Amino acid sequence: MNPLLKNIMLSHGGGGLESQELIHELILKHFSNPILNRLEDAAVINTKSKLAFTTDSFTVSPIFFNGGDIGKLSIAGTVNDLSMMGARPLYLSASFIIEEGFLLSDLEKIIISMKAELDKSGAQIVTGDTKVVPKHAVDKIFINTSGIGEVVYDGLSSKNLNTGDVIIVSGTVGDHGACILAQREGIKLETSLESDCQSLWQLVKCLIDSGIKISAMRDPTRGGLAAVLNEWAAASKVEIEIIETAIPIKPEVFGICELLGLDAVTFASEGRMVIAVNIEDTQRTLEILKTHPLGRDASIIGSVKSKSGLGQLPHPQVILKSDYGTSRLMELPSGELLPRIC
Amino acid sequence: MNPLLKNIMLSHGGGGLESQELIHELILKHFSNPILNRLEDAAVINTKSKLAFTTDSFTVSPIFFNGGDIGKLSIAGTVNDLSMMGARPLYLSASFIIEEGFLLSDLEKIIISMKAELDKSGAQIVTGDTKVVPKHAVDKIFINTSGIGEVVYDGLSSKNLNTGDVIIVSGTVGDHGACILAQREGIKLETSLESDCQSLWQLVKCLIDSGIKISAMRDPTRGGLAAVLNEWAAASKVEIEIIETAIPIKPEVFGICELLGLDAVTFASEGRMVIAVNIEDTQRTLEILKTHPLGRDASIIGSVKSKSGLGQLPHPQVILKSDYGTSRLMELPSGELLPRIC
Repeated sequence: MNPLLKNIMLSHGGGGLESQELIHELILKHFSNPILNRLEDAAVINTKSKLAFTTDSFTVSPIFFNGGDIGKLSIAGTVNDLSMMGARPLYLSASFIIEEGFLLSDLEKIIISMKAELDKSGAQIVTGDTKVVPKHAVDKIFINTSGIGEVVYDGLSSKNLNTGDVIIVSGTVGDHGACILAQREGIKLETSLESDCQSLWQLVKCLIDSGIKISAMRDPTRGGLAAVLNEWAAASKVEIEIIETAIPIKPEVFGICELLGLDAVTFASEGRMVIAVNIEDTQRTLEILKTHPLGRDASIIGSVKSKSGLGQLPHPQVILKSDYGTSRLMELPSGELLPRIC
Repeated sequence: MNPLLKNIMLSHGGGGLESQELIHELILKHFSNPILNRLEDAAVINTKSKLAFTTDSFTVSPIFFNGGDIGKLSIAGTVNDLSMMGARPLYLSASFIIEEGFLLSDLEKIIISMKAELDKSGAQIVTGDTKVVPKHAVDKIFINTSGIGEVVYDGLSSKNLNTGDVIIVSGTVGDHGACILAQREGIKLETSLESDCQSLWQLVKCLIDSGIKISAMRDPTRGGLAAVLNEWAAASKVEIEIIETAIPIKPEVFGICELLGLDAVTFASEGRMVIAVNIEDTQRTLEILKTHPLGRDASIIGSVKSKSGLGQLPHPQVILKSDYGTSRLMELPSGELLPRIC
């Protein structure tokens, strides 16, 4: 590529010469692997297993933030979606929509960050697409990643929660949301709060390999912990009881919430998971999580209280218990949450 | 959903209540199938075959055009990418990035159009994502579709062209590009030129079922016929000779080219394919194409002249021959082509 070129041009997305240069000198430079290198219209994959397939578009603003960037996020997000289904992330697609004038050096930073994140799970980008649109048709850059994984732990589902299941989170919640919000609003923090953005596959693999019985796993992204728990309660027709003070929340995150009148349990995390496990496996699960760098701050936060049967139907709801014995509903978030958080 | 709501709100992409309403009352309403309906983080697919996997983001402007819209295009584009690899389209993802304030009725039109196009190949949307971004962060709506197909004709590749192979196009070229351009520039046409946007799987299936020997197939989207032929020549290290007057171009498309000083062979088609077949199968291929509604205007446009061997190396290039015996290069398009054509 002409070394004097520093900005993305419309022609980089035009399908001609400059598109080829961009693919060869930037995309293949970092993502090179035998499948992608074929540069055909679609990647051909040999497989004989049960697969998981997911997609996510990333529109986060700002695109560079404490603890990550849109590139890292776009890989971790899709890797985590596959992991939550008990699937080993194998093949990812990457599709970029870039604003004319975007800095190539910034694009390279993002791509390097994607590659580093891919290496953490061993997944590969095997197919892709790049569109460049005129100024103001998109704000800087959006990235879609779709992913295929091999299901190694079958049967995970929001519908699988049972009475007695214990609810565990793998770490502090809301760090990503609070970090993005703080940077966007220009809130200065004494400690430098970082996004929790990270790929969870290695941690999930440890849980799967241990043989524990998992009912469901979910990464609490948009809508946060509150959305995951409410979706689970509704899908499994159960009541979930959460101990308010057991939810691990960083003081900085709590501070931002106080400042803005928002609730951390509705903030997105991008490197945490919520797990529902059989009560007998509680201690084992906690031990595995806490001894892994990705799960150091894991905590038991509650349990599943009742399951709908032939008799009395429980309200599928999430109850938040305070230390003083009072209880209130943890509601499914609604209204305008945080746009462009992921 | 509240029947008074007509516009997409930020909360429709927020992961909470309104997101669920949007999914249940709009997405599932039209795309309903057992896999998607599970609403898990990733779709789980049972398979034992060789798969193709592709991705494409659609940013076309205007989003509604003669002969289609961004929804139809987003399905046809990905179905065609799979088809060009000899893969039966099976599972698609759909990821929407929508501007706050976008009309829900327009979104429904787009989704209905996607569903109609899906039915033409039998493919299904099995996973998805919706982001809503504030005004001006995106121009109206972008759609990413990724797709998985089962490879039923193995070994297709840009590298497979052989001396003597015949080059056939399945119909007139550049209709889509000319149509979008005309609408964008406000060019009034006497006849109403339509985009060729359509799914090619049924046509490809006929070719595959017939047992003919196909070297390569490609849909000439961005960069048009000129990009496909140049990529093939380079990948297969061959010279391709094209008879200029044999290229089927609609008079309206030719007229728009004349008016704007552009070349129809660089215009995108979204429902055509270029095929390189063994010379012995030429008549059979043409017959199959011409008897199918998707290939009525199929034409032989040229052939592969020489293949690089141990001896003399041919220039991997595309030669355009005129009726008067003169010849010139058909070059790989470069510079600013048409942004937001797909």
